[in-house]
Amino acid sequence: MNVVETARDLATAFAERAEQHDREASFPKADFDDLRAAGLLGLMVPERLGGNGCDFATYARVAATLAEGSAATALVFNMHCSVTGALAATPDDLARAVGAPESFFAWRDRVLADAANGALYLVAMSERGAGSRFSAMTTAYEAEGDGWRVRGHKTFCSGAGHADAYAVVARNGDSVSQFLVPAGDGIRVEQTWDPLGMRATASNDVHLDVHVGRDALLGGVEGLALLLARVSPQWLVASYAAVYVGIARAAIACAATQLTERGLHGLPAVRARLGRADAATQAAWLATLDAASRVDAAPGDPATNRAVYRAKLLAGDTAADVAGSMLEACGTSATRRGNPLERLFRDARCGALQPATSDVCADWLGVAALGLDPDEEAAVPRW
Amino acid sequence: MNVVETARDLATAFAERAEQHDREASFPKADFDDLRAAGLLGLMVPERLGGNGCDFATYARVAATLAEGSAATALVFNMHCSVTGALAATPDDLARAVGAPESFFAWRDRVLADAANGALYLVAMSERGAGSRFSAMTTAYEAEGDGWRVRGHKTFCSGAGHADAYAVVARNGDSVSQFLVPAGDGIRVEQTWDPLGMRATASNDVHLDVHVGRDALLGGVEGLALLLARVSPQWLVASYAAVYVGIARAAIACAATQLTERGLHGLPAVRARLGRADAATQAAWLATLDAASRVDAAPGDPATNRAVYRAKLLAGDTAADVAGSMLEACGTSATRRGNPLERLFRDARCGALQPATSDVCADWLGVAALGLDPDEEAAVPRW
Amino acid sequence: MNVVETARDLATAFAERAEQHDREASFPKADFDDLRAAGLLGLMVPERLGGNGCDFATYARVAATLAEGSAATALVFNMHCSVTGALAATPDDLARAVGAPESFFAWRDRVLADAANGALYLVAMSERGAGSRFSAMTTAYEAEGDGWRVRGHKTFCSGAGHADAYAVVARNGDSVSQFLVPAGDGIRVEQTWDPLGMRATASNDVHLDVHVGRDALLGGVEGLALLLARVSPQWLVASYAAVYVGIARAAIACAATQLTERGLHGLPAVRARLGRADAATQAAWLATLDAASRVDAAPGDPATNRAVYRAKLLAGDTAADVAGSMLEACGTSATRRGNPLERLFRDARCGALQPATSDVCADWLGVAALGLDPDEEAAVPRW
Amino acid sequence: MNVVETARDLATAFAERAEQHDREASFPKADFDDLRAAGLLGLMVPERLGGNGCDFATYARVAATLAEGSAATALVFNMHCSVTGALAATPDDLARAVGAPESFFAWRDRVLADAANGALYLVAMSERGAGSRFSAMTTAYEAEGDGWRVRGHKTFCSGAGHADAYAVVARNGDSVSQFLVPAGDGIRVEQTWDPLGMRATASNDVHLDVHVGRDALLGGVEGLALLLARVSPQWLVASYAAVYVGIARAAIACAATQLTERGLHGLPAVRARLGRADAATQAAWLATLDAASRVDAAPGDPATNRAVYRAKLLAGDTAADVAGSMLEACGTSATRRGNPLERLFRDARCGALQPATSDVCADWLGVAALGLDPDEEAAVPRW
Repeated sequence: MNVVETARDLATAFAERAEQHDREASFPKADFDDLRAAGLLGLMVPERLGGNGCDFATYARVAATLAEGSAATALVFNMHCSVTGALAATPDDLARAVGAPESFFAWRDRVLADAANGALYLVAMSERGAGSRFSAMTTAYEAEGDGWRVRGHKTFCSGAGHADAYAVVARNGDSVSQFLVPAGDGIRVEQTWDPLGMRATASNDVHLDVHVGRDALLGGVEGLALLLARVSPQWLVASYAAVYVGIARAAIACAATQLTERGLHGLPAVRARLGRADAATQAAWLATLDAASRVDAAPGDPATNRAVYRAKLLAGDTAADVAGSMLEACGTSATRRGNPLERLFRDARCGALQPATSDVCADWLGVAALGLDPDEEAAVPRW
Repeated sequence: MNVVETARDLATAFAERAEQHDREASFPKADFDDLRAAGLLGLMVPERLGGNGCDFATYARVAATLAEGSAATALVFNMHCSVTGALAATPDDLARAVGAPESFFAWRDRVLADAANGALYLVAMSERGAGSRFSAMTTAYEAEGDGWRVRGHKTFCSGAGHADAYAVVARNGDSVSQFLVPAGDGIRVEQTWDPLGMRATASNDVHLDVHVGRDALLGGVEGLALLLARVSPQWLVASYAAVYVGIARAAIACAATQLTERGLHGLPAVRARLGRADAATQAAWLATLDAASRVDAAPGDPATNRAVYRAKLLAGDTAADVAGSMLEACGTSATRRGNPLERLFRDARCGALQPATSDVCADWLGVAALGLDPDEEAAVPRW
Repeated sequence: MNVVETARDLATAFAERAEQHDREASFPKADFDDLRAAGLLGLMVPERLGGNGCDFATYARVAATLAEGSAATALVFNMHCSVTGALAATPDDLARAVGAPESFFAWRDRVLADAANGALYLVAMSERGAGSRFSAMTTAYEAEGDGWRVRGHKTFCSGAGHADAYAVVARNGDSVSQFLVPAGDGIRVEQTWDPLGMRATASNDVHLDVHVGRDALLGGVEGLALLLARVSPQWLVASYAAVYVGIARAAIACAATQLTERGLHGLPAVRARLGRADAATQAAWLATLDAASRVDAAPGDPATNRAVYRAKLLAGDTAADVAGSMLEACGTSATRRGNPLERLFRDARCGALQPATSDVCADWLGVAALGLDPDEEAAVPRW
Repeated sequence: MNVVETARDLATAFAERAEQHDREASFPKADFDDLRAAGLLGLMVPERLGGNGCDFATYARVAATLAEGSAATALVFNMHCSVTGALAATPDDLARAVGAPESFFAWRDRVLADAANGALYLVAMSERGAGSRFSAMTTAYEAEGDGWRVRGHKTFCSGAGHADAYAVVARNGDSVSQFLVPAGDGIRVEQTWDPLGMRATASNDVHLDVHVGRDALLGGVEGLALLLARVSPQWLVASYAAVYVGIARAAIACAATQLTERGLHGLPAVRARLGRADAATQAAWLATLDAASRVDAAPGDPATNRAVYRAKLLAGDTAADVAGSMLEACGTSATRRGNPLERLFRDARCGALQPATSDVCADWLGVAALGLDPDEEAAVPRW
């Protein structure tokens, strides 16, 4: 059974737990136990280190499939994959070129092997007020003993309290760096999470005041965070896309089932809604796959990055439109909590709002279409 | 202070309670105490019976204003106004022409005077499976003693358990009639209400098995329900419109405040969203006022009914679009529960789904635009 | 017969000539002969000077009605009304306050009386590159003898060559002024007009190198052009709105007729298109009437100006959407030249592009919704 | 140089001639001389018969590229490719299974070899009133001598008068068949073509009263037309898609150039329009390529047919939206005839109206999404 088939099986189990975790805004621990047991925490880990060694396109297929069962679980899983995937995909040559010490490679391999064995890594990046713009972040680090001290307050930390380590962006003056901070003392989760959608991501706040070893600096070099965001936007921008396509698909399937059960499948307005939703969802999916394939073939290439922003824009907007239209097709009964469409509608609304927002993506792509450099021409700093 | 100014004051108080009732899906009892104390339960009651004697256009202004504070409260209030307004607006001549006994008039005046004194009347019409289509309803009535027995199961009964009486549609063979059933034994509320939006309407299920007196038959004549729906669609179709315009207005105001506080008011994409939302909301409002003015001047007229369906279509669609766009303007922080935009977004989605749904309105208006009779040419029965 | 009924009669005649003038991009001379004969060139002229003395709301009704017959004729007529209407509506006190000499009033009355007697005034404002932004215009004036010399090159001059005089914006250093330049030597029309839509406006280029008397300075004072644009945006921004509502109405009526003739009126997709078009068109119309009523009651008021920008935005966007949807409802046969829908579709596309464009209106309204002054906060100069 | 590169070169030449042919609604004879000289009339002809032997995906790439230069030329070329492509792609086994005589194969090879040598085949299918619904066509055939007589009146015949032979759908009672009718006596072109867009297709009417040999019956068997339409919708439905993607691409490129030249590339509203247009166009293109790849891998498969209808829907709607938005980005100057955007806007509007229209596609896809058979569940006959 390949990883996509595995994901399909897991999604069925996720779907049964999704309502409860949505209601509670609680972390879907059992879903991650399933992912761990199925070996999928090693999805992006090279085979030589015990993982599946999958590429980004396969990740997209797995993520969309998981999201059909539980979008929130897929979104948390995406965070883990972004950490492991970025680590695994960094060429040794590039790491050396930017100054990574030799000790970095052993550390990286250990981190990845641990993931293949079930370690879960999540991301603590956003801050209140700053969003995900690096330039506005206030979490700070400084040298301390043989390592670093990291202090700050992160928000929207998916799965906070359930990870083995957290990727944290922090700054020291103008130098913005990323750290992999192990769970433990010095990390305090504040239960702030009670949002519209994607509730089971349990994206609570995290307060950090923690000493980490020298190894914890990602890449082994200070100041790489912005560079990483610019050259590999896929994990910051487009890995969400697959999740939102999964939501749109689930909404259509759910609507088709409910309409058929209620004998409303002959209504022309209903058919037109389903037909347009189907086309739009497939288009968003093809854009997501296109971006993923380009990420695998030519990561960081301008054409790749354009595909990445397109996927984000299309998937986020399409999910919201499709879920809203499917609610209209199914009527008020579908708005009762417990009806999966009600949850999917709320989850779907979040896509365009996650960074890079749809408005930011539209601006980025417009600048690129004008033949300019969208990373230079931003009206406001993008990161 | 006129009734609209009164409504504005009340709306401020409603807004402070809205979050809690939304969270609990609980009836906003204090809001109705305020409405009662301010005399607004008599809004549609003639002055000779102690009420405000307002017309439909004034109702629309009051409803939109209340909805800016709490859309759910305004929607429940709408139900009360639909009962009192329809009773008050029925010309005596027409009532006599369709066969109303003389006793009807004294009963009607008593019912209306009670409202002016604080009695709350709500509506138990929809049924699971039937929605609001009269032709598919199963709640039944039959003659019993000096009155009637009404048995059935109603759903989406806003304010269930908090009214002094309920307007109930029931059938006896092909005859579909409306009753005003007093609260008391024989009416059992089942707590089923846990929906996406408009949660504080507390629209729980109602089980009826109740004897009512001869007076309780609205109009004093059997079989008038469908006629009433056709000749006066304003209360079934368009009185919601004002409520949803109120939501759209509140969403824009809320977004403007938050964006200004966060210093994001200069972003061009944000301005464009606010500008388009402002224009669309005002257009929906003008359509609502136009329908309301026509209802006052020429109730039941074909041109009036077209205006009514237009108002419903535009207000429902606009509220959903505007609330979604304001969320995008404000970003993820606005999706936290407790942020009013989060609630407004969920409330706004309900408008197009309430009967007549946007798709039904579009079909109705299309038939009318073709010069045909939309009450005859329905693909599926509209009531 | 009131002026709207007169307009309805004229529109029937206009409709028969519209195809030929559209094909030729030629000025509809016979339409203006009809308007002159019916006395409608005096629509905005006070009764004491022989005109109809109509207000802006009546103008809007007349313009929309004429546009149902020929949108291009209505658009040229709008230019004439903007000149006569602005002159007629300027309070004597205000004119004196900004420094108008006493001779201004006699001149103004003569100009208006001439219009009531059939004189046609048009506008030569836009310039290539500058559009309608005063700040970028290059047409210049300077004192010469007892008057002024005006030199420059105007574009998009509707009805060029067919007017008795032209309202011309010109600058002298920072001072931007308006002149009423009589037809005659020194005005040369260059046949450049061959556009997508609104072809019968014959909006050719005009080259000016002309001496005008002292009277020709509008208001009798230099430097008033920008002030006028800001305090009375109705003629620059929203008088178009009524024209585009007329197009949308004509497109719906035309589609309903063709669909009925071809037996396609039962198709659900067609009905939905007609119904949504009907609602949107009526909403745009109500917004146009609302703006017009406010212009009459409180010209230049911030709330009036917001209504004006809303009307422009809604009418322009709605006309384009509706005409496109009606084409889709009617199918390929409606795209044959000679089919009125084909022309209406092209005409409709022009509304959002005329100043203030829809994007500019959205920004303006967004700034106003944020509580700021939209005339100060423009990203680019609006005039 | 591969065929796509060849197409790119040709498109540059086409673009220079496009304005004149659009103005005249005249056939772009020089474009087809270029296509013939470049060997592209043999694009779909097997290599063993002297052609390029390209698959459908390559066709799509070529068609989109040609359309960037001249959409009308690409649309006529599409007709030629549909005839040669359908002939070339029919498996010998299937032909024998439905009863094709052995003589069919030699005839087919000769027809295809002639195309590789420069013969141009076009399609005369639509009829006034019937559109492309086979069930409503009145063009008739009957046995006559050693062959058939075909009599009727076709409309929308792209390139009428410029082909070496025409694929004609005709009926004999319930039997609907296709013929390849050679140019010559008995085919009379009536100059009726003067439409909104795609003017250079010169899709005039054709009157047929002609004797054809036994060979002229496509497939050698009567009654295959409907079967062919159902099992291979790609040529009837989706081959247009690539053409309309080409239009959208050209509109974006054209807008980017004009905006840059005029210094308007910094306007945020303009950037947002370009960015959203870019994403939507690429999504439509990916859907077109997906359909094309599936046509090559599994022609007639239900999943293939869904992809085909999606491509048609997305490309038609996207082209119209994108071209309209690019006009708004560029403003009134872009609406002058001679500005390529003006032509692209009119051409773009035609996509959604060509069969299967967007509304038909939406219904078809909606039925499929409900798990039903869209060829059986049509509200109105699709063919």
